[in-house]
Amino acid sequence: MTKVAVLGAGSWGTALSVVLADNGHDVRLWTHRQEQAEIINSTHRNEKYLEPAIPESINAFYHLEEAIKDVTAIVIVVPTKAIREVCSHLNDVLKHSVTIIHASKGIEPVTLKRVSQMISEEMSKYSEDDIVVLSGPSHAEEVALRQPTTVTVSSINQENAGIAQDLFINEVFRVYTSRDILGIELGGALKNIIALGAGISDGLGFGDNAKAALITRGLAEIARLGTSLGANPLSFLGLPGVGDLIVTCTSVHSRNWRAGNLLGKGNQLDEVLDQMGMVVEGVRTVKAAYQFAEEQQVEMPITTGIYQILFEGKPPKEVVEQLMNRTKREEMDDLAQLLNERYSQ
Amino acid sequence: MTKVAVLGAGSWGTALSVVLADNGHDVRLWTHRQEQAEIINSTHRNEKYLEPAIPESINAFYHLEEAIKDVTAIVIVVPTKAIREVCSHLNDVLKHSVTIIHASKGIEPVTLKRVSQMISEEMSKYSEDDIVVLSGPSHAEEVALRQPTTVTVSSINQENAGIAQDLFINEVFRVYTSRDILGIELGGALKNIIALGAGISDGLGFGDNAKAALITRGLAEIARLGTSLGANPLSFLGLPGVGDLIVTCTSVHSRNWRAGNLLGKGNQLDEVLDQMGMVVEGVRTVKAAYQFAEEQQVEMPITTGIYQILFEGKPPKEVVEQLMNRTKREEMDDLAQLLNERYSQ
Repeated sequence: MTKVAVLGAGSWGTALSVVLADNGHDVRLWTHRQEQAEIINSTHRNEKYLEPAIPESINAFYHLEEAIKDVTAIVIVVPTKAIREVCSHLNDVLKHSVTIIHASKGIEPVTLKRVSQMISEEMSKYSEDDIVVLSGPSHAEEVALRQPTTVTVSSINQENAGIAQDLFINEVFRVYTSRDILGIELGGALKNIIALGAGISDGLGFGDNAKAALITRGLAEIARLGTSLGANPLSFLGLPGVGDLIVTCTSVHSRNWRAGNLLGKGNQLDEVLDQMGMVVEGVRTVKAAYQFAEEQQVEMPITTGIYQILFEGKPPKEVVEQLMNRTKREEMDDLAQLLNERYSQ
Repeated sequence: MTKVAVLGAGSWGTALSVVLADNGHDVRLWTHRQEQAEIINSTHRNEKYLEPAIPESINAFYHLEEAIKDVTAIVIVVPTKAIREVCSHLNDVLKHSVTIIHASKGIEPVTLKRVSQMISEEMSKYSEDDIVVLSGPSHAEEVALRQPTTVTVSSINQENAGIAQDLFINEVFRVYTSRDILGIELGGALKNIIALGAGISDGLGFGDNAKAALITRGLAEIARLGTSLGANPLSFLGLPGVGDLIVTCTSVHSRNWRAGNLLGKGNQLDEVLDQMGMVVEGVRTVKAAYQFAEEQQVEMPITTGIYQILFEGKPPKEVVEQLMNRTKREEMDDLAQLLNERYSQ
């Protein structure tokens, strides 16, 4: 039994707490909202975020210092925009050494930093290389229902990746390891762009053919961007890449898909965000990726189109038509070139 | 305007006829059933296979000789098991030179031959290199409703690939080209194995997480087999690979998914095939791939599991558990190795 703190009691943080509790660990789930912590402790439910009941052994806390007392591992699962604030606070109160794992999917606008970079910048004793990321195709609801799920953990520090794998792995929650944290983090963040696009396509009333084309071409596009940021293109083909992309783009559970769907039906971005009432990571990610693509002159037609819908009020139908009417070309040019460059060195 | 014969009036043959008719070509749709040809000509519908009405300009024929009269291109869209019979007949009656395109997805059991190989073996004047394949993520229904769709055409003979691209391309039907006919044909055939598996997972009541894992690991598995047969692994990442896989695995339209779904719910193979009443290419493909994997010692755990369900009566639940409980391993080993081998030469 290991003492583990999970920071962030949204859907995914709660579901990961369930996995850890099932594995016999002492789980301390932190939320900054006192009321939420009290409800979890008294009802063993967190219904606003997750339908199924959660094990009674999970204890919720709203004082961070108390939540992390004597833990040997901390799992950070807060929205990307709260990462710096929570980690800066954590840096002040954490006095002993722990393994840090995060399961947040996003990149920081303007700086384009990944979550592990933001964490290490806020926490003076932790280098970027020590942080572990956990990512993969995983709806929180299904994990809480103990339905079969597979994820990948990755860190430059292989020992830490192994610790994370051992903490989470069980019969219905398979954990693979990977060495390419850059690709895993970027894949998890960038796939939300394509999920928004898939939602827009569905919202416009287009079918599976259009969506499959968008996902496939989108995969090539995010792999291209990821590679230009230093990732291994192969990471986009694994569970945290194509796997996560499939689950996010084809399921009504996904909030990025749902936001896209509302946009495709003609709603404006501010209305959509009001209706959702939850964080839609993809919206910030589109902005970050668009800025980067502009600066670095990486060709990203799908991201550009979605940016135009989100921030320039361009009608979704026009964007799709523009994507369909690009000139005739040879398929796989992009990925082939990408992989050729990498493997011919 | 070009005179084109489409051989095979199933869902896909009829939908491709609609695209060709929309592009202004003179379409001659052949079926071996006189009654079906008469219904199509009198009602301009082919409702058993395709819901929407079809253009009146499409003429149906049941004499092959008449259907191919003066055509400059022939599109073959019959089930894989009928390819040899139809092509042998075609070889007897075809006296002039044409471009041959096929859109059938399957491989021949025992010989493991691809459709273009079977066609050229039956047709004395056509080499394998001249045949064009058309493949991609495309439900026939959606194509007939003019919903946006993308496909890939491929041939060793680039001129023929260009002819096929020009025949089919329009504003809602995008046609890319590729040089890897081997990868395109194998991807189109092998993806049906994974579609059966996705249906089984859904039929067992598992969720999106399990299905995404199965699709992702399945993609690595069919890429491994395809590469050992000589294909370019990159072809499995494009529209006829991952694109087709997504559309086939996540849609209730797909007959391979539907067959798998019934199997997952506890039905036996013969009951399922009876209920379907249509060809389920994936069943033959599983047998062919399993045989090959055994002979060549290619590791294909998903295919093996599905073979055991189909032909050895193993309970689906046991197979999924067996797949989930494989030893801990590093992700992307397979694909990374595959691509490394290819690109380090």
